[in-house]
Amino acid sequence: MSVVARRLWPRRALFYTPGSDMRKIEKLRKLSGAGIPDFVALDLEDGVAMSAKTQARENIANTYEGLRADMPNVQFGIRVNSVSSGLLSEDLRILRELKYAPSCLLLPKVDSAEEVREFVETYSLALGRCRWKLKAPVPLVSFIETAQGLLNMRESFQAILDSQYIKHEATVFGSDDFVASIGAHRSQNGEELMYARQKLVAHAKAFNIQAIDMVWIDFKNLEGLQENSMQGANLGFTGKQVIHPANIETVQRVFSPTEEKVQWASELLEQFAEHEKSGKGAFVFRGKMIDMPLVKQAENIIVSMRSAS
Amino acid sequence: MSVVARRLWPRRALFYTPGSDMRKIEKLRKLSGAGIPDFVALDLEDGVAMSAKTQARENIANTYEGLRADMPNVQFGIRVNSVSSGLLSEDLRILRELKYAPSCLLLPKVDSAEEVREFVETYSLALGRCRWKLKAPVPLVSFIETAQGLLNMRESFQAILDSQYIKHEATVFGSDDFVASIGAHRSQNGEELMYARQKLVAHAKAFNIQAIDMVWIDFKNLEGLQENSMQGANLGFTGKQVIHPANIETVQRVFSPTEEKVQWASELLEQFAEHEKSGKGAFVFRGKMIDMPLVKQAENIIVSMRSAS
Amino acid sequence: MSVVARRLWPRRALFYTPGSDMRKIEKLRKLSGAGIPDFVALDLEDGVAMSAKTQARENIANTYEGLRADMPNVQFGIRVNSVSSGLLSEDLRILRELKYAPSCLLLPKVDSAEEVREFVETYSLALGRCRWKLKAPVPLVSFIETAQGLLNMRESFQAILDSQYIKHEATVFGSDDFVASIGAHRSQNGEELMYARQKLVAHAKAFNIQAIDMVWIDFKNLEGLQENSMQGANLGFTGKQVIHPANIETVQRVFSPTEEKVQWASELLEQFAEHEKSGKGAFVFRGKMIDMPLVKQAENIIVSMRSAS
Repeated sequence: MSVVARRLWPRRALFYTPGSDMRKIEKLRKLSGAGIPDFVALDLEDGVAMSAKTQARENIANTYEGLRADMPNVQFGIRVNSVSSGLLSEDLRILRELKYAPSCLLLPKVDSAEEVREFVETYSLALGRCRWKLKAPVPLVSFIETAQGLLNMRESFQAILDSQYIKHEATVFGSDDFVASIGAHRSQNGEELMYARQKLVAHAKAFNIQAIDMVWIDFKNLEGLQENSMQGANLGFTGKQVIHPANIETVQRVFSPTEEKVQWASELLEQFAEHEKSGKGAFVFRGKMIDMPLVKQAENIIVSMRSAS
Repeated sequence: MSVVARRLWPRRALFYTPGSDMRKIEKLRKLSGAGIPDFVALDLEDGVAMSAKTQARENIANTYEGLRADMPNVQFGIRVNSVSSGLLSEDLRILRELKYAPSCLLLPKVDSAEEVREFVETYSLALGRCRWKLKAPVPLVSFIETAQGLLNMRESFQAILDSQYIKHEATVFGSDDFVASIGAHRSQNGEELMYARQKLVAHAKAFNIQAIDMVWIDFKNLEGLQENSMQGANLGFTGKQVIHPANIETVQRVFSPTEEKVQWASELLEQFAEHEKSGKGAFVFRGKMIDMPLVKQAENIIVSMRSAS
Repeated sequence: MSVVARRLWPRRALFYTPGSDMRKIEKLRKLSGAGIPDFVALDLEDGVAMSAKTQARENIANTYEGLRADMPNVQFGIRVNSVSSGLLSEDLRILRELKYAPSCLLLPKVDSAEEVREFVETYSLALGRCRWKLKAPVPLVSFIETAQGLLNMRESFQAILDSQYIKHEATVFGSDDFVASIGAHRSQNGEELMYARQKLVAHAKAFNIQAIDMVWIDFKNLEGLQENSMQGANLGFTGKQVIHPANIETVQRVFSPTEEKVQWASELLEQFAEHEKSGKGAFVFRGKMIDMPLVKQAENIIVSMRSAS
């Protein structure tokens, strides 16, 4: 059964909002209905020019508590700059401006366990200067987006697990940074990303965290978005990065189970319970041989439906 | 040259028979000709409901020696429950009922080196209470079927290699458990399994063991079975799991070399021997440049043909 | 920015010439214009029959300095036999015949860190007997071409990095040896190689070295060559092995950036510089949302164009 789906905040759509752009931050409040994302990253990193970092920090410090109060169905995370950027310490001063612990931090370009430990140290120092006391580890969302990051993923994830002040809840595949890092070129069928995406999913699930898929950059092509989202869901991703508000609804729909699937899962579980009582193991359901793995898949679907609703 | 193919029992088809179902166990004797599988797993695990485990253990203990005597061309393995199931100790009591060491044990859900060591300990204790003395390490077939199992495969295989009482001969990709473990969904082209399947093959070959591919669950679709089997053989798998007797023949045919291939390999090796004498390295054969790797492929084919016949 | 592309000798085409064949060695001088390869491997390994190894060593020792002087746009590497062959020590006696350090050594079948350390030891001993003094570490090109090699790639690369006498500059995917090693068969779409090729690219880039793709064995099929080369370039490979002179031009063209790409990259970088000044991060260019990763891709293209010209 999917521990992930039951206990973690759902992160079907990770929507980026540059911290430097007050107009875009204010526009978040206008999102409504199915267009409201599960998860918003208030960005200090790649979405913000070097000359606008200070302004972005101020904007986030000033709006964070208000956004959180006004939009309770959204989790607001703060994406700081990477450890290697030299900006992290300054970014984390935002924590001193807050009344409570942030809902989530996003750490880009996690390249090695050493970097993770450096992040934890900088973050621990920042914690010591805050008005609020840490009651529970802050949820962390990591980014794997370089060749080194992919190579060292296991050790990096282990280093996060070893820290008591943060709780690793999801990892994001930074597809475009990754493509640049390995000198690849984006092809039509996307085969150049399959190894990295599948390795990331397998590692995420082994560490019991969510896996958030590549961004669909051609944001006006909604059909392409839908296909690419479905492919990610099939691979085991639990959500997807979104850079345009018009893409949120599609992504969140795809990363929720269909009625048909839910129906299939319910019936299968019902029949399984009966066969279990009667002492038979494998059985045939809708013409296919069913055993434990398929039963578990069905349980995953029922569980994810509950967490999404 | 393929050491695997020459020394190991061929396991082109791994056919499951639930230990709890005496009717199915008895039906094994009715298999004939090309429908006789190389390898049968008498199952105590997922094919047997919790309420039927005791019955399954009894059935296997009662029929094992007879089956082995009556069907000398089949290797009978016993699939115990996983280390984490808590049932392993009880399962291994079967060994006390046997007159000789079992031909093979199958260990599902091998998730870590620690689990392997725990298995070895439980198994060693069981050995001490048997009527027979261990003359050679018992062949072990491991299952990789979770995200953790895939992540820890290398250390797990090393831990098996380090044990003196068992001999790792094959590993099985538990596709459906794996799909459930990573929360993936089965797609038409099966791309969601490619990373895991190829990683498993590479590890198996690096450890010089056989690699047994995913089950084809839609057992009535023989064309799909054939295609899926051929894909597995192309990827380097040496065999495939089978859940229906009608699928054994197709699978064993695909995992044997074709006459055409054998012809190609023989001629290539003949020409190579001549060129080798005359001091030339690379040469052209049937319009393609041939060098050592292709020579080795040809040797693999000739060797596998001998072991299959 | 791609450190690799700027500092290393370009190795878009790795062209093999058997050391035992003086006629083929002499023919190298007749290559002209776009048919001149960046990189030639004078081969002592698989392209040379056992009975011709001594002759090959003599040929290379006699022609090496002349070739290097006459063809300054080509880097001449010597491919020795693997550590496990038992021939390495004898191969490296060639170094004593040279006036200067060789431009590059190619080490096939790098299967483990232990092998790398054994190579370094043998090579260090050989260095001590040379007329020339080592002024800088000799560039090394490694080959990954077995299941073990793929499994141990990270440790092997680390072991090379730890040596002070050699400088790891590129790694080659020995596709056909690899296929034989894992017992796979070559299929039309080549999916059986995707895991290994992508894992190799990711490791190469994490270690900041070039990645040289599989050989296209059907050398008369230029369309297939072009497609296979483009696929490799898309995956992040920086060059490709070539066994026929008629294939050099196509391969080197594909592994150079197109005018169109260079145009795209220049314009993107220009617009980025403007947006950066005005304090905006992400922006829209030719209808697509652009942020840092795409900026880096554009930089990669401009850099590779400079190194190729």
